[in-house]
Amino acid sequence: MSENMRIWRGEEPVDAIDPGDRGLAYGDGLFETMRVHEGRVVWWQAHRQRLARGGDVLHIVMPDADFLCRQVDAIAADCADGVLKLILTRGIGERGYAVSAAARPTLVLALSDVPPPLPPAGLTLRWCDTRWAIQPPLAGIKHLNRLEQVLARAEWSDPAIHEGLVCDTAGRVVSATATNLFVLRDGRWLTPPVRDCGIAGICRDWLLRHVPGAAEAELRPADVESAPAIILCNAVRGILPVAALGERRWVPLDEVRRLVAVLAEAEPAFAAMPQ
Amino acid sequence: MSENMRIWRGEEPVDAIDPGDRGLAYGDGLFETMRVHEGRVVWWQAHRQRLARGGDVLHIVMPDADFLCRQVDAIAADCADGVLKLILTRGIGERGYAVSAAARPTLVLALSDVPPPLPPAGLTLRWCDTRWAIQPPLAGIKHLNRLEQVLARAEWSDPAIHEGLVCDTAGRVVSATATNLFVLRDGRWLTPPVRDCGIAGICRDWLLRHVPGAAEAELRPADVESAPAIILCNAVRGILPVAALGERRWVPLDEVRRLVAVLAEAEPAFAAMPQ
Repeated sequence: MSENMRIWRGEEPVDAIDPGDRGLAYGDGLFETMRVHEGRVVWWQAHRQRLARGGDVLHIVMPDADFLCRQVDAIAADCADGVLKLILTRGIGERGYAVSAAARPTLVLALSDVPPPLPPAGLTLRWCDTRWAIQPPLAGIKHLNRLEQVLARAEWSDPAIHEGLVCDTAGRVVSATATNLFVLRDGRWLTPPVRDCGIAGICRDWLLRHVPGAAEAELRPADVESAPAIILCNAVRGILPVAALGERRWVPLDEVRRLVAVLAEAEPAFAAMPQ
Repeated sequence: MSENMRIWRGEEPVDAIDPGDRGLAYGDGLFETMRVHEGRVVWWQAHRQRLARGGDVLHIVMPDADFLCRQVDAIAADCADGVLKLILTRGIGERGYAVSAAARPTLVLALSDVPPPLPPAGLTLRWCDTRWAIQPPLAGIKHLNRLEQVLARAEWSDPAIHEGLVCDTAGRVVSATATNLFVLRDGRWLTPPVRDCGIAGICRDWLLRHVPGAAEAELRPADVESAPAIILCNAVRGILPVAALGERRWVPLDEVRRLVAVLAEAEPAFAAMPQ
């Protein structure tokens, strides 16, 4: 086990994932992927709140808040810049879907490098054929059942394509495979709702709260392609301008530069990201 | 690690699940739950074929057939009666959904006892509020994304309720949480299709092939409640007659006894199961 990875069963440090862990058996758990900058986790409270919302939905008991914050602080403390992945599973289970009240959740914290920079001129996207299934009880939270994302991301291997946009089974645009989407329309930044599927991204939430006029709106593929600008975002890379989607090209607009600047001012971790 | 559990990375025996395994990170893998009887796995070829179908869908390379059969034979050889769970994941991955061609699949084999017998008079069922989402590319195969099943099974804790029936988001009855469903109508045993969601159960497939008139048919809740008999089935317990569903009661019919007898004659493992 790497020095940058730690595992607990309840609050007891352990060396390995048990093969009977329900996280492995059923994807019965949650995760968070977080940016670490200058020794602290960016948006930690928001990540912790989303984790707790997921715990409410799945009836997974959250680790003690002090314990969790202490471990996250400890692993982030010496890191100038990195990515911290947190996995919380229901713990070891008997065979079968029924949940044992006695299970102690498994917690994994793993620190890794920030991924390589993306082209400053903006990302190149494609449309995916994969559709997100409509399942409101599991929508929004960041659970471990991510085969749809794996299938969507497996649709291309061309390294010149950076991300793929995905619709739900009702034909509405929802997100990219690992990032949320905002579309500029009539001067406002709009992002699809995540009530039926998709993930309530932490950077998405931040933009909805801090950018005047930003709002949720149902979007069809034509709404995306006809927009004067679109961006992707996530909690690791912040805002990612988009330069191309299939045949469609976008030139950098002031509205995008302003959006990037607002985030960079509030969260210096994202000031240094290549835009 | 229990003596009855073995793990391989590719064909190399290992001691533990790596915390970076994509089976844990994304539920990126498959499983089979199999009955072992008198030293052999019941319906092994059918389980292996379903596993291979899942591998085709998820682009997970199957273990070498000889290697896999040898390991399964070895763990089953000394077992008079038990349950063998097989998990096959894509293996250890980098962070992110993209698949590395270099990943060696992780294989877990775990032998456990046959679960306690169910009431010979038949099971008591309920309707679940949880719905299976419609996702045709993932339907039928036995992948590791099973949060829907976990949510459905968590709807009740009363030990007098044995299973719950689940509809899809379009209102069609599909299955129970861990078993397939057959409904007697006009003298024929009918089971819902698994094209949009649900799992192509191995016992379900056996019955479709070996019982004259057995077929797939779309079923609504009223079709189930008005049927003269319904049964559940899976590869561990075989056929499970149903005695009650909510307020509805069923008395044992000759058609059910005949169905149980046909299976018991073909597969002695299920002759001893309490019916």
